[in-house]
Amino acid sequence: MTIYHPSQQQGAAVFQAIPLNNRKKLSSSEVIKFGRNPNICQYTFQDKQVSRVQFSLQLFKELDSSVLSFEIKNLSKRTSLLVDNRELGYLNKVDLPYRCMVRFGDYQFLLEKQDGESLEFFETQFFLSPRSLVQEVNWPVPEFSRLSSCSTQSTSPIEIDENEF
Amino acid sequence: MTIYHPSQQQGAAVFQAIPLNNRKKLSSSEVIKFGRNPNICQYTFQDKQVSRVQFSLQLFKELDSSVLSFEIKNLSKRTSLLVDNRELGYLNKVDLPYRCMVRFGDYQFLLEKQDGESLEFFETQFFLSPRSLVQEVNWPVPEFSRLSSCSTQSTSPIEIDENEF
Repeated sequence: MTIYHPSQQQGAAVFQAIPLNNRKKLSSSEVIKFGRNPNICQYTFQDKQVSRVQFSLQLFKELDSSVLSFEIKNLSKRTSLLVDNRELGYLNKVDLPYRCMVRFGDYQFLLEKQDGESLEFFETQFFLSPRSLVQEVNWPVPEFSRLSSCSTQSTSPIEIDENEF
Repeated sequence: MTIYHPSQQQGAAVFQAIPLNNRKKLSSSEVIKFGRNPNICQYTFQDKQVSRVQFSLQLFKELDSSVLSFEIKNLSKRTSLLVDNRELGYLNKVDLPYRCMVRFGDYQFLLEKQDGESLEFFETQFFLSPRSLVQEVNWPVPEFSRLSSCSTQSTSPIEIDENEF
């Protein structure tokens, strides 16, 4: 999972509690929760704008197949979760493809699944991205736009995001 | 949820830890687990043949709809879960219809969903059935068979079940 938040550039510690780079082994039956409350969530964001539980990820095995996949569920009552371009409200869930972008507020997560051998365990691994993932993955910036963004380099980029807190 | 196990007729206490008849309020974000281990499961069966966690139930909201539904996932490595006539292996999951039969081993559960108003909570309610639910719901017994079953009343019924422990 490659993660990004614009405040990390200004030294904010929203991802301070996320263990970076090292793999972590988890039981296949475990539901992993992401959010603000460390008593409920395995992975927490140091940010008062994040819900106590923001979303959950859980492994499942596809019917009549040996493929393991992840299901994501939005557990935040006030913030939508964008999975690629699909908007999930509170308690909406969706099965994830091999590679997808998950977003809420200014948070960006590029989720990439690697197949493995075990049914009993899976591993997580987090990388911090120095740049916004949304521009890189979804919206390649055309040449004239790049020039224009150079000329306004010193100002903050304007984010068009319907899911602001 | 109407529950049945053949050993309850002989006074076995497999459902002793299941609170009968009274409704119980639970948070919509909670994953409810059924199995043998009381440290992990909200609802336990007093039976060594049951897995530590047998299956889980969780609420979700259907996309582009206000309907809340349940998803069931088999968390037992050794026993299949039958949902109506669909067989779920370990980590297989399926969304439940309004009314369905869930079975594993000799355990039978008739799950019936009632719509409500709240997004934050849902309620569970358990009833004990004195008779097998499978015969009642799926296989109405024809007249000649009922006569024949009267003549062998004193012997145990023979269960045809591919999912014996």
